[in-house]
Amino acid sequence: MTNQKKITLTEAEIPEKWYNIVADMPNKPLPPLHPGTHEPIGPEMLAPLFPMELIRQEVSTDPWVTIPDEVRELYKIWRPTPMFRAYGLEKLLDTPAKIYYKYEGVSPAGSHKPNTAIPQAYYNKQEGVKRITTETGAGQWGSALSFACGLFGIECEVYMVRASYDGKPYRKMMMNTWGATVYPSPSDRTNAGRSILSQNPDSPGSLGIAISEAVELAMQDDHTKYALGSVLNHVLMHQTVIGLESITQMEKAGDMPDIIVAPFGGGSNFAGIGFPFLRHNLTEGKKIRCIAAGPTSCPKLTRGVFRYDLGDTMGMTPLLPMYTLGHNFIPAPIHAGGLRYHGAGAIVSQLLKDGLIEAQSVNQLECFEAGIKFARTEGIIPAPEANHAIATVIREANRAKEEGVSKTILFNLCGHGHFDMGAYDQYLSGKLVEHEVTQAEILESLAELDTPLIA
Amino acid sequence: MTNQKKITLTEAEIPEKWYNIVADMPNKPLPPLHPGTHEPIGPEMLAPLFPMELIRQEVSTDPWVTIPDEVRELYKIWRPTPMFRAYGLEKLLDTPAKIYYKYEGVSPAGSHKPNTAIPQAYYNKQEGVKRITTETGAGQWGSALSFACGLFGIECEVYMVRASYDGKPYRKMMMNTWGATVYPSPSDRTNAGRSILSQNPDSPGSLGIAISEAVELAMQDDHTKYALGSVLNHVLMHQTVIGLESITQMEKAGDMPDIIVAPFGGGSNFAGIGFPFLRHNLTEGKKIRCIAAGPTSCPKLTRGVFRYDLGDTMGMTPLLPMYTLGHNFIPAPIHAGGLRYHGAGAIVSQLLKDGLIEAQSVNQLECFEAGIKFARTEGIIPAPEANHAIATVIREANRAKEEGVSKTILFNLCGHGHFDMGAYDQYLSGKLVEHEVTQAEILESLAELDTPLIA
Repeated sequence: MTNQKKITLTEAEIPEKWYNIVADMPNKPLPPLHPGTHEPIGPEMLAPLFPMELIRQEVSTDPWVTIPDEVRELYKIWRPTPMFRAYGLEKLLDTPAKIYYKYEGVSPAGSHKPNTAIPQAYYNKQEGVKRITTETGAGQWGSALSFACGLFGIECEVYMVRASYDGKPYRKMMMNTWGATVYPSPSDRTNAGRSILSQNPDSPGSLGIAISEAVELAMQDDHTKYALGSVLNHVLMHQTVIGLESITQMEKAGDMPDIIVAPFGGGSNFAGIGFPFLRHNLTEGKKIRCIAAGPTSCPKLTRGVFRYDLGDTMGMTPLLPMYTLGHNFIPAPIHAGGLRYHGAGAIVSQLLKDGLIEAQSVNQLECFEAGIKFARTEGIIPAPEANHAIATVIREANRAKEEGVSKTILFNLCGHGHFDMGAYDQYLSGKLVEHEVTQAEILESLAELDTPLIA
Repeated sequence: MTNQKKITLTEAEIPEKWYNIVADMPNKPLPPLHPGTHEPIGPEMLAPLFPMELIRQEVSTDPWVTIPDEVRELYKIWRPTPMFRAYGLEKLLDTPAKIYYKYEGVSPAGSHKPNTAIPQAYYNKQEGVKRITTETGAGQWGSALSFACGLFGIECEVYMVRASYDGKPYRKMMMNTWGATVYPSPSDRTNAGRSILSQNPDSPGSLGIAISEAVELAMQDDHTKYALGSVLNHVLMHQTVIGLESITQMEKAGDMPDIIVAPFGGGSNFAGIGFPFLRHNLTEGKKIRCIAAGPTSCPKLTRGVFRYDLGDTMGMTPLLPMYTLGHNFIPAPIHAGGLRYHGAGAIVSQLLKDGLIEAQSVNQLECFEAGIKFARTEGIIPAPEANHAIATVIREANRAKEEGVSKTILFNLCGHGHFDMGAYDQYLSGKLVEHEVTQAEILESLAELDTPLIA
């Protein structure tokens, strides 16, 4: 009865540097292109949107970037985060696999997103920015940025997908509590929003539309910048504090993962826990399997194509090299709103293309079945996004049992489900429906693209 | 920039014993009385409701009770909980006071309540109990017991005050996720419920009615017991893990509190953080001020009387020595549902009577103003119950500033407000109303009592 359940670290063990995997990639990520000329864009094109330090980080090839003291101070509010051994789940599955999870839901915003929201707000503050605009779907990112801007005294304006704004009012109230202003998107505050509303006054909105609105506003005003919660290189890099802490924790547990699993939306969750371990594969020839777990209803990594595509709906962003389903692809309204983005970031896409990482897709019912098993054995009620990782872990643990081998599995429990109880209720009352996407739908969406292919 | 924000402990530092303050009280708590005969009741009267080990703890005068290994293993899911120095709040208040908070919201149920739910479920399991009934108001206790019963595979039946059942559906869904069954109270499943419904089919319910229902069911069936989330001696004792950890953490910080503040409902929150420190007052002559912070709308400690009263509405519980507003007192529907109980437990009441602790009352608007200040400086959004402690801490910190003295203040941040965002929204939109209770209302409620006075 003296098993170690929780592996904790002290504040002194918060990482001092972020890890930039670009330095160690055999094939570097392809550059963003200008949407009109299709020529690679320079840092100056991004200057209206982001502070210079974030642009520098976006294009950096240094393997390590120092975390500012002020950011580490604020990380202390919830970091280092705990790692747990899932004894309860292991027992239920009767598996020889050892299962560990890193729990990012202890942040005030309830997910891993503040790991990048804090440094983004910090660099904006350093460069005199007064207001930051952003979009949010399910609300995790909008909450995280509101929290960070609240601490720095920066005005925060969040464009929240109308369907979520109406359906998840508590997330909006959370952002208000931290002092942010939240608008339903499409709104009448931007050309992008007005254009959509003129065609469809009842538009439920989408992440792509909300991005267009937030970007448009940032470009109009010198004191306003834009912040993105995933996809971009600097965002992924900020999240590597998760994996760097995890390495220290696994060492303390006297163990090391054979398999790492993380939910996959735009890539920051997966990169956060995975890249510091992947570094050992790239630089030391280790063979840790890194699995990105996405939804079957938005299967960009498993059924998308690798080509240039827009980051938003209205074409206000550069073209990015992505595994994509097409920027007009509208995924079914699954509860894991954070995984409904049409494309994957440039780094993750290149790694997948090069066979250095794996991807799996999981349907919604399997996810919630896994989430309930987890809640009743480990206690924590996971976010719907996290359930994609848990379902994938259960698959791998069952495989280990069938094969009679012990595997060590680590996954990122990226957030709690306190704002998603309605989804659990639907599942428990048998009302949760599955959303399958047909090959015809994917092909139709991809056929609309006229952006450059990648050899 | 190397200030320690968070003081953490390792699993090995989870306390091995609970502290029973009864051993050190100069005047012991008065015994419960039979509601009919007004004679002190023996342990056998409680046997239909509680497992024998909990009854033994209820009447124990030993200063220390060993925490079973199995309970300590499950405490590891969230314990030890972190302690934080509130640098952000201190800076906002510009106070010479040093403010610390112990954060109990990291438990899966989001509050301190699992500290007693886990051992209560454990002892029931040990004695072969198959089903536990309980009541819940705002839902914190029902969630905690559902979580604990889920881990032990015990059936859990929660009677949730109708007004909360309708108004806080997410709390109900949380309990269902852990496998519990939740009924709105009054229900048609008990004589107590049917009796109320026959007089008023639209009754919004109350904690007193829900207790009557849960107790009635437990008394009918040998395999069913009842569990209470506050008030009773054993419940308060289980919560002392909070204060025992806090002492170790304060020692690590090289500091010790002059003032301790906790929200006050039935007493378990306050006892949990306060009693281990109060022990130093009782046994070593220390002078730490322990302040219970309750709502002005349910001011049992500041405006109630000390006498015997019933624990429930229908008279199914023994008579308990309480500071009470009368068991028929219906407090205004403030958002801090956990603080709406009419009476205080026997131990806390005796300590207040003997001048060994203090009490303050705070109104709802002052509480939410304090909660918003806290969220925007420290990040965490507090539960409405916790805001009563924060408002009181701000009063004491401001007093320290006026007096030009440095004080060390520690408070119990007993839970997060993720299920209370509607309350913050009401406050921010100016719709939150104050509920003052008149002296006439209190006197009218107390005049109905025909229970024994206490000299």
